[in-house]
Amino acid sequence: MVKINQNYMKLPGSYLFSTIGRKVREYEEKNPDVKIIRLGIGDVTLPIVPSVIDALHMAVDEMGRKETFRGYAPDLGYEFLREKIAEYDYRARGCQISADEIFISDGAKCDCGNIQEIFSTDSRIAVCDPVYPVYVDSNVMAGRTGMYDPGQQRFERVIYMTCIGETGFLPEIPGEVPDLIYLCFPNNPTGAVMKKDRLQEWVDYANRHGSVILYDAAYESFISDEDIPHSIYECDGARSCAIEFRSFSKTAGFTGLRLGFTVIPRELKAEGVSLWDLWARRHGTKYNGAPYIIQRAGEAVYSEEGRKQIRKQVSWYMDNAKIISEGLKRAGYEVSGGVNAPYIWMKTPGSMTSWEFFDYLLEDIHVVGTPGSGFGPHGEGYFRLTAFGSREDTIEAMERIGK
Amino acid sequence: MVKINQNYMKLPGSYLFSTIGRKVREYEEKNPDVKIIRLGIGDVTLPIVPSVIDALHMAVDEMGRKETFRGYAPDLGYEFLREKIAEYDYRARGCQISADEIFISDGAKCDCGNIQEIFSTDSRIAVCDPVYPVYVDSNVMAGRTGMYDPGQQRFERVIYMTCIGETGFLPEIPGEVPDLIYLCFPNNPTGAVMKKDRLQEWVDYANRHGSVILYDAAYESFISDEDIPHSIYECDGARSCAIEFRSFSKTAGFTGLRLGFTVIPRELKAEGVSLWDLWARRHGTKYNGAPYIIQRAGEAVYSEEGRKQIRKQVSWYMDNAKIISEGLKRAGYEVSGGVNAPYIWMKTPGSMTSWEFFDYLLEDIHVVGTPGSGFGPHGEGYFRLTAFGSREDTIEAMERIGK
Repeated sequence: MVKINQNYMKLPGSYLFSTIGRKVREYEEKNPDVKIIRLGIGDVTLPIVPSVIDALHMAVDEMGRKETFRGYAPDLGYEFLREKIAEYDYRARGCQISADEIFISDGAKCDCGNIQEIFSTDSRIAVCDPVYPVYVDSNVMAGRTGMYDPGQQRFERVIYMTCIGETGFLPEIPGEVPDLIYLCFPNNPTGAVMKKDRLQEWVDYANRHGSVILYDAAYESFISDEDIPHSIYECDGARSCAIEFRSFSKTAGFTGLRLGFTVIPRELKAEGVSLWDLWARRHGTKYNGAPYIIQRAGEAVYSEEGRKQIRKQVSWYMDNAKIISEGLKRAGYEVSGGVNAPYIWMKTPGSMTSWEFFDYLLEDIHVVGTPGSGFGPHGEGYFRLTAFGSREDTIEAMERIGK
Repeated sequence: MVKINQNYMKLPGSYLFSTIGRKVREYEEKNPDVKIIRLGIGDVTLPIVPSVIDALHMAVDEMGRKETFRGYAPDLGYEFLREKIAEYDYRARGCQISADEIFISDGAKCDCGNIQEIFSTDSRIAVCDPVYPVYVDSNVMAGRTGMYDPGQQRFERVIYMTCIGETGFLPEIPGEVPDLIYLCFPNNPTGAVMKKDRLQEWVDYANRHGSVILYDAAYESFISDEDIPHSIYECDGARSCAIEFRSFSKTAGFTGLRLGFTVIPRELKAEGVSLWDLWARRHGTKYNGAPYIIQRAGEAVYSEEGRKQIRKQVSWYMDNAKIISEGLKRAGYEVSGGVNAPYIWMKTPGSMTSWEFFDYLLEDIHVVGTPGSGFGPHGEGYFRLTAFGSREDTIEAMERIGK
């Protein structure tokens, strides 16, 4: 008689964004005439830039001709893309990362969710609170977290690093030493950023204790300040303690194209075993590569034209972030984030919970955001808005909230 | 101090196709002038058909315009594709599978590798021997198989179902009752097929014992005989005991485009829990959908033109299969498969092992195949060739082997 993975039963409620999607869908079905503005899920709205579209068309044509057709991709991804990444994302910023330390994938969410597999199920993980749910949920499913305590809203074996206003929403080094430390900067959901000297402390800590930092840099392209690192490999010693995740989703609007990558330096080891080797084995066994045409699209992001067009898009979104931040402040809300990051983190008014505010915004002014409590107990009383809406929607949402 | 997933250390050697890739690469580097013919990895060579190319171009254009741009896909995949699958792959064959029981993914390899996650790590798995390595390796990584016995070339907790010539390379019902039964028909690597009455016995067995059949139907489009089922849901009662995996890779040449799907009927349960719910949760947490443009490409496979073009491609490959089968027989080899399946399974000559024959073919006549022993101990003394090469290559390979 077959048995299920009982760890799944420890997950409280369904995946945050699926729940939001369902609530919005249900409201829309009941109120088909209402114009809902979505500033919730963090999906982009600007179209793919022209140089990437051209690259896609070219690659599609190649797939239609016998001489240029491509089947299975190389295990790590195409070298034409990995070389560009190594050059522009790493060597250009002084990081010693080579093309063969880069694993191309279909997105940072998958990689962030799957990376835990190569570590022992005994491993203690540390996460920020609030946090992007995938880090915790994927570890729950693997049996690494113990039981959920509904009172505390926490898993018993997870080390939570509280991120509150008083500390600029940055985590403090935890009392207990974790094996795996999930860090995401610029942060989702709070929009907080970590300066280089502070990140260096985490790298030093991890090296001292034999911990591995799982660094989610999906939002690095929104950084404009000089003293904020785009990559953890800008810190000394990160090659021996850190894995980095990157995404094309927000950088180049690839949420619907699916492309990302993971960096594992060759010298990164645990118990004497190369983590590169383990991830390569997982990649080779359970994954079959991102589509050729999408990898060509990724390459085009690094062309001269591509980089110009992408930069314009990013700064356009950051103008949205400014409109939201200023709009909310004018309306009397307490706001952080939205600078060097596409997320705006606001306090809910009065004693309203995050989900109460969600329902209020959806039902009364028809704006969708993300309840902070969906990201962890210290997200309670907060609410996340994103800069990825259209300009009209963003402005209209602020007008509605202003009233 | 972080620890690794020690289960990975139980895996003997690297992933089969990565090893073959490395061997061929090394030989090519040393012998740059040699023309190597690849009939090994099962990668297709015909270009994507025109109606799919047109659909890709259209979808790319949509991604470049604000009004038609698409971001994150719906959790299960786009309905336009799921509806087509339900209609043409299932309802047209009398199977009661609805669109919302279909989960779109980036390929059957990923789904076959990931599905084990929703089951208990205590589960006993049964696999054919020889077998597609992903079923076993993904369970090794999860700690479900026990240790590897190098003498037996088997994992201690896996139930192996021997598939030998005497039984037409079909598995017999095992003595011990497995929790999870991996079946793949038309079979990779042997090319064997299972008739409906025989598959019905497996379905009845699984229902009687509360086992779940994980049915890999990646090669169903190569079936031409009437009495061979394309889907396990053609059998009575399969909805309460079977999960099915399908792929566009061989059907429509999508190895480089990446598209597949998994079917989980709503009533399929274990310990009273819906497996649909568990897989939906995994899908939502660790995966972010196949690219929009690729899902449109999949839709085009089901258009009238698309179906015609695909059928032509499939029969073209089956002509290759015939050329290989007949060529090998003429050269005095013992051959099976290659009818209703794109794989040809041959006995190695004399007392040659599979890898000896691999090296001989690579080094002496420059043809790449797949050593049978890479698929399990009962694959030893066999060798797999595929029908996916070009016509010239296939003919030339047979000429070289003939000498």
